[in-house]
Amino acid sequence: MTHRATVDFLLYDWLKAESLCQRERHAEHNRETFTAVLDLSEKIAQEQFAPLNRLTDTHEPEFDGVTVTLPKETAMAMAAFNESGLMAASKDESVGGMRLPTVVEIASMSFFYKASVSLAAYPMLTRGNANTILAHGTPKQIEVFAKGGFEGRTFGTMCLSEPQAGSSLSDIATRAVPDVAGDGTGIGWQADSLGPRYRLKGNKMWISGGEHEMGENIVHLVLAKIPQADGKPVPGVKGISLFIVPRKLVKAGGSITAQRNDVALAGLNHKCGYRGTVNTLLNFGEGKFPVNGEAGAVGYLIGKEGEGLKCMFTLMNEARTSVGLGATMLGYAGYEYSLDYAKQRPQGRRMGAGGKDHSAPQIPIIEHTDVKRMLMMQKAIAEGGLALGLLCAQLLDDEQTGTGEEAEKAGLLLELLTPVAKSWPSEWAQEANSLAIQILGGYGYTRDYPVEQYWRDNRLNMIHEGTHGIQGLDLLGRKVVMNGGKALSVLAERISETIQKAGHVEGLAGHANALAQALQKVGATTKAAWSTGVSEEALANATPFLQAFGHTVLAWVWLELALAAKAAQAAGAWDRSPLGAGFLQGKLATADYFFSYELPKIDAWLGVVSRRDLTCAQAQADWF
Amino acid sequence: MTHRATVDFLLYDWLKAESLCQRERHAEHNRETFTAVLDLSEKIAQEQFAPLNRLTDTHEPEFDGVTVTLPKETAMAMAAFNESGLMAASKDESVGGMRLPTVVEIASMSFFYKASVSLAAYPMLTRGNANTILAHGTPKQIEVFAKGGFEGRTFGTMCLSEPQAGSSLSDIATRAVPDVAGDGTGIGWQADSLGPRYRLKGNKMWISGGEHEMGENIVHLVLAKIPQADGKPVPGVKGISLFIVPRKLVKAGGSITAQRNDVALAGLNHKCGYRGTVNTLLNFGEGKFPVNGEAGAVGYLIGKEGEGLKCMFTLMNEARTSVGLGATMLGYAGYEYSLDYAKQRPQGRRMGAGGKDHSAPQIPIIEHTDVKRMLMMQKAIAEGGLALGLLCAQLLDDEQTGTGEEAEKAGLLLELLTPVAKSWPSEWAQEANSLAIQILGGYGYTRDYPVEQYWRDNRLNMIHEGTHGIQGLDLLGRKVVMNGGKALSVLAERISETIQKAGHVEGLAGHANALAQALQKVGATTKAAWSTGVSEEALANATPFLQAFGHTVLAWVWLELALAAKAAQAAGAWDRSPLGAGFLQGKLATADYFFSYELPKIDAWLGVVSRRDLTCAQAQADWF
Repeated sequence: MTHRATVDFLLYDWLKAESLCQRERHAEHNRETFTAVLDLSEKIAQEQFAPLNRLTDTHEPEFDGVTVTLPKETAMAMAAFNESGLMAASKDESVGGMRLPTVVEIASMSFFYKASVSLAAYPMLTRGNANTILAHGTPKQIEVFAKGGFEGRTFGTMCLSEPQAGSSLSDIATRAVPDVAGDGTGIGWQADSLGPRYRLKGNKMWISGGEHEMGENIVHLVLAKIPQADGKPVPGVKGISLFIVPRKLVKAGGSITAQRNDVALAGLNHKCGYRGTVNTLLNFGEGKFPVNGEAGAVGYLIGKEGEGLKCMFTLMNEARTSVGLGATMLGYAGYEYSLDYAKQRPQGRRMGAGGKDHSAPQIPIIEHTDVKRMLMMQKAIAEGGLALGLLCAQLLDDEQTGTGEEAEKAGLLLELLTPVAKSWPSEWAQEANSLAIQILGGYGYTRDYPVEQYWRDNRLNMIHEGTHGIQGLDLLGRKVVMNGGKALSVLAERISETIQKAGHVEGLAGHANALAQALQKVGATTKAAWSTGVSEEALANATPFLQAFGHTVLAWVWLELALAAKAAQAAGAWDRSPLGAGFLQGKLATADYFFSYELPKIDAWLGVVSRRDLTCAQAQADWF
Repeated sequence: MTHRATVDFLLYDWLKAESLCQRERHAEHNRETFTAVLDLSEKIAQEQFAPLNRLTDTHEPEFDGVTVTLPKETAMAMAAFNESGLMAASKDESVGGMRLPTVVEIASMSFFYKASVSLAAYPMLTRGNANTILAHGTPKQIEVFAKGGFEGRTFGTMCLSEPQAGSSLSDIATRAVPDVAGDGTGIGWQADSLGPRYRLKGNKMWISGGEHEMGENIVHLVLAKIPQADGKPVPGVKGISLFIVPRKLVKAGGSITAQRNDVALAGLNHKCGYRGTVNTLLNFGEGKFPVNGEAGAVGYLIGKEGEGLKCMFTLMNEARTSVGLGATMLGYAGYEYSLDYAKQRPQGRRMGAGGKDHSAPQIPIIEHTDVKRMLMMQKAIAEGGLALGLLCAQLLDDEQTGTGEEAEKAGLLLELLTPVAKSWPSEWAQEANSLAIQILGGYGYTRDYPVEQYWRDNRLNMIHEGTHGIQGLDLLGRKVVMNGGKALSVLAERISETIQKAGHVEGLAGHANALAQALQKVGATTKAAWSTGVSEEALANATPFLQAFGHTVLAWVWLELALAAKAAQAAGAWDRSPLGAGFLQGKLATADYFFSYELPKIDAWLGVVSRRDLTCAQAQADWF
């Protein structure tokens, strides 16, 4: 299949990822080490994850009131992943890493998402959790709580939502009060060196990986509010702090005890898909597992008091781009399966000059134009989404190991693109999966084929880690206007460079022109939206703006890929590939597809934004 | 909820359904009898169907090798439906009917589709099956095979697809040979009076309701080919004939025997949704239940030899509009549920001049603009789809009981609109269901709420009874060009009348203008598509054409509804409704929504059609 070849094309022909090895941090790497990591990832994903994907769908996690049981194969897949050392690939040696560029680490993850998105969610969350502790924790917290994650010994979660407050984090009701009592247990859990110690009480909803028996421990990162002197928390998100709450208590030295912290499973959520990831409602501090005779989950403050949300955004942002890549790879999985099916399945005949020749054998359905259209759209989404995911990863590399202005711009661009990287694949790879079903026809709708599961699994992605609506508000309400619109300027600059280059290339000048117009429209629409300065008007159509912005970014990505394909053609870069000339030709055709079929959609979306259309905003509840 | 009120609005304020009572056929009816039928339908659907909807999802049909077992509640729901007499509502008294207009019969069905689409599929198929026999069968065939369906004693199926030939009916391999042997069974199955007798052999795939123990019999309508003198069938669809194949043999007099015909269940299909309808692979004539010692399913030719597909289209067309209405009502169900949820669920706060006031209680999420947008889109799809479904039903009334040119035009318009009525709700009510999930957030993704099932159930509708791609080819390849484009002219005439009226109405003139432009574009695009006369070019983008055509038709429907709402406002028609003025205001706002947010989407779709874009058509298999 073309996934690996496309990863190589994106990394080397497009992103020039080898050049990262010139930076000191990655000096010990080269294309050979990248190749080894990608080979290994592809192999483990294919052999240890893919075969379990349907099994985890049909064998949901179960809870008997005491223990959560996952299919035993889940732990086997985790062990295979952990043994590979991929978890900490981009990290320092001190936490078991090998200083790989993030872009290669994320390319590696793409194989796991494609093989089984709900199994890959465990390492994704664990890595994000450990990265957050690495970014905001004390050296001791890193040693005790992050290292286990990087080494695959412990698992990590993120605990934000509560039953009464989904997207509205300012309304979380979980409380954290300083734990001033002495340690009467004799096991040494009163580990002040692990950070300021609190007791947490509250309920956390939608916690993926919240309870299971895998690994040595589960490290929860929990948002909660610390009451002030008057007993009340600071209202709004400013009152939120972040806590490390281990499932099993940990001694000051870091060793994990057998004693449960006061974190109890209240129930499992039974989802439409994505069933390989156990999803839980957790009760913190209800007294089911009292510590030192008292109810209250022991937690250690990480980062500063009141800066919990800021710290959590390290994890949130990583989770958002990861969710986007997961969605993309579900789209890729459906694309590959339906492509293979379309090449094999005979049905129908070509229309000749004198009608159909019924004596001829049936043709494979890939020869029908509408099937090609459905494959082309899937390809545009899957490969475009993957390109966007790798671009974001490389921006993180540039932010972290680039220099001066380059680093600053990379950071801004990544901030701007994060809502796109999360939302665009979530919306469109869902559509891609629907098309995969459609190509298989009735068969695609049965559980005998994998595509209906991809489609069900994917539906979660517009919901978790910030809904579609939240991404739109983040983009139009914050990201395009922050720093005086600087991030948007950086994007415009980058896009303009691409337009400049493509304007002189045969076959791409028309696309360059279309992209220039789209960029102009997005800019003008952003201004028009905010022209009255009234946020209700500006943001009344934030979701259509998100859709149009996403399509414009993807048009840019596809023009970039077309340029890379042209350059590779000229250099004969893929001449010896068994995929043949069709490989690069396909990239160019998909760019053509995107500019012909997709980019023109932005006008309808932008229209309501620039008019500040209030049809929906002004609708009253009794009109429905 | 507003479903019933909207049905009343559509029937009386818009379609003036009472005027049908002036026709001789419906002379005994009036608004009161319509009301009684709708009341009854709503009640049975709500009480006997809705409570079973999740149960039929979690308790799939099972097959132990001998018997198919459905949840026992399925038969209870069928009994409730059958006792109501609704099955034959629009038919003559001779088959147990009451000569109700089709538009009221279909309005009645909308309640059942909404309550449980997969349970309602049984009466839908049975009625369509009986209608087909009524249209093409001999009096004896009607008496023996249709009447049982209309009376709810027997069930009906449609057997078209085969495993090797899904959409390509010309490739069906089921053979029917004249049955010349004598009747050695002594039970009198050799009932020549039931029609020319054949023996059928072949496999039929995706047969809904194909095997179960409900009712006295199952009447299969089966497409098969009769070999010619040389032993070969006529190639293409011209060689197809239609046969009545009862599950249990029937005596000449019509009584059903205990002896199984040679129709055997090969297996059940396990679907992603729509699980309440048992879906089967049937083997005809494999000898599992030999008749008179011989393999071969006994079937009776209905209609003329070689005209099977034409006859089957009576059933196909009915099934297509029914599938569309079923999709619509799934959209309606999700709309109602998510609307109710949005009114109840508190989350977040309004943005005030000084930011959010965190001391205020949270607001119900229906106050958030993006939630209103998602409700508005659902409303536009659900109510618009319902309007389209009722319009098609009334066109059938006009074709059958109207006079002269009116009847002819109605017939043409119905033919033209059938692919739209099938495809538009299948695509967009799926999207509506996705939005219902989105409004419920994580909860919507769990199986504790009904919306994820609506979404799964709905995914079938773009596949069965002619895929989306087939509908596009039917529309652009046949319907818009047939009779020299006469049907398209009739539609243009009707749309122009609406534009004419709305052009003078305050608040609607802009919409009228937009619709006029859309109509012009659709016409010009149709011409441009066919301008080279090369069908591969014309039809290369039949699906985007279908999408644009559908949105244009729906814009027309919404402008019609806005006119009806304005008239009702002026007449004070809903002044005493407990729904209040908001009910009509909501219709107007939804029309505004459709014209602002939806209709502008057609440009992107029409662009590729009018350019005869061959990006997809020319893509080669090795480019993917």
